[in-house]
Order: sequence, then structure tokens, then C-alpha cells
Amino acid sequence: MTNEELLSNATLQSMKQVLGRFDKGLADLSDADFQKRVSPGRNRLYYLLGHLTAVHDRLLPLLFIGERLHPELDEAFITSPDGSASDSVSVAELRKAWTEINARLTAALERFSPEDWLHRHAAVSEEDFAADPTRNRLAVVISRTNHLSFHTGQFVLAK
Amino acid sequence: MTNEELLSNATLQSMKQVLGRFDKGLADLSDADFQKRVSPGRNRLYYLLGHLTAVHDRLLPLLFIGERLHPELDEAFITSPDGSASDSVSVAELRKAWTEINARLTAALERFSPEDWLHRHAAVSEEDFAADPTRNRLAVVISRTNHLSFHTGQFVLAK
Repeated sequence: MTNEELLSNATLQSMKQVLGRFDKGLADLSDADFQKRVSPGRNRLYYLLGHLTAVHDRLLPLLFIGERLHPELDEAFITSPDGSASDSVSVAELRKAWTEINARLTAALERFSPEDWLHRHAAVSEEDFAADPTRNRLAVVISRTNHLSFHTGQFVLAK
Repeated sequence: MTNEELLSNATLQSMKQVLGRFDKGLADLSDADFQKRVSPGRNRLYYLLGHLTAVHDRLLPLLFIGERLHPELDEAFITSPDGSASDSVSVAELRKAWTEINARLTAALERFSPEDWLHRHAAVSEEDFAADPTRNRLAVVISRTNHLSFHTGQFVLAK
């Protein structure tokens, strides 16, 4: 590997590792466990899984990988806080969407060259990106990996 | 910036951002708040701050930056679980150590060239590193940033 490949590969490996740990935790939970809260009065695991699934689905267009697979999740899991809507999506459906989205995402990221990683993300204009090239796809993936770690820390408390 | 600099800089910026958010949360807490638990029966904020401080102190030799500043923290905050020892360190002392260690750490990392980031970390031998160059300092910093994000997710629950 070149130095550039080593540098960008570290972010991909980190994302896959954090995803792998989270998925191991998911596999140990029954569907009923998803009604548990991470702490009294806080989010249910059901809501957190929906939230993470919607956020990762948004990465597909944000990283110019493709169209969203599940835009219908935003209303219940991003726009609204936990408990404000009826649970219209089953845990089985959330598990399936989570797996599909991350498989799509990691398959695309594994084909990225260092130059691909340094390409702008879709929420910044070409003009703004020219002035600040740190607003790239690598920065987005690092940020979302930290976001997943943040909620993984909460997830483990409900065990 | 060169491509290599953009790629390695993203990790440093991420670490500084996660540290900045954690420190903002710390600033809002009274010393008495550190007795709160992140969830019933789980760690106190006091223990988590000590744990993170010890782990970041260990980064100094692990990244070949220098000697540890507070090796005495390991016994209470890494070797032992919360509640097994008397609270021999004050919250004020922990806050001070946390700030000193991270100032030392980030000042050193800001001087790293891309080649410095790709240097082996101290827990891998030169021989093993030659066989697997992904065991570098960049990978360690990414991993510890995710670790800090993981516990930040817990910290915010005690508010």
C-alpha cells in the first residue's frame, strides 16, 4: 500500500470495526429487548437503531454512493424524538434495513481510492469546497463512525 | 496541504472535535455531579473521567510522545472497576490531569507529518510492524477517539 492508501484505509478499518462491535451486540438482543431504555427516561434501543439506520442511509447520497434505500425512516427516527410516533416499523424490518444499508455503504467505500476519499461530500458546494478541502468524504465517515461509537456506548447500558 | 496531509489531518481534527465536545460537557458539571451514575448500577462520572484520563495518559508513551504524566491512575481507574477503591483522587485533580494530558497530546500530534502518523506504535515490534504497517500511530488515535466518543455517549445520560 502507498502512504495515501495506508492513511485512508485506517478510517475504513475503523468504521468496519465499530460496525462489527455494534452488530455483535445486536445479535445478542431479542426483539423484545429493543423496548429497553439506555437509562430511565432516555431513548429505547428501538429508537436508537432506527436513528442510526436513518443516519447511515443518508450517507449514501451524502457520499455520492447512490440513492437512499429507506428515506421513510426520517420522520420517526430523525425528525421526531422517541415515543412521539407509533412504532410503525418492526424490529425485524429495522435490523434488515440496517444490514442492507451498511453492506451497500462498506462495499462502496472499499472501492474508494485516496482521491475518492478526498472528494467533496454532497452537502458542500464546489465553490465552498475549493476554499476548504477538509470538507471531504473522509471527514464525513470519521464523523459518523464517532456518532456510532457514541450511541454504542449507550446501547451497551441496556443489557 | 498535500493529499497525505489532508488524509492525516482529518483524524487530528476529529480527535480535537470529540475532545472539545467532551470538555464542554465537563465544564457544565459541578464536582458533586461526578457522583452521578450514567445509568443505575453503572459507572459514576467520577470513574469514567479517571478511566479516560488514564487511557489518554497511556497514549503518551504508546505514540512515542514522552513519559506518562499520571501512571498512578491505572490502579483505581483501569485495573479496578468503579467502587472497588476509595476515591483517593479529587475531581479537581482529575480535571487538571485530563486537561494537561490532552494539551500535551494534541500539541505533539499537531506537529506530526504524514510519515510520523504512519510510524509504528510502541506496542508493536519493528518486526511485526514490517509485516503489518496498519499497526501505526494513526490507527491508535482513531481507536482512542472512538473510545472517547463511546464514553461521551454515556456521560451525557447523567445530566
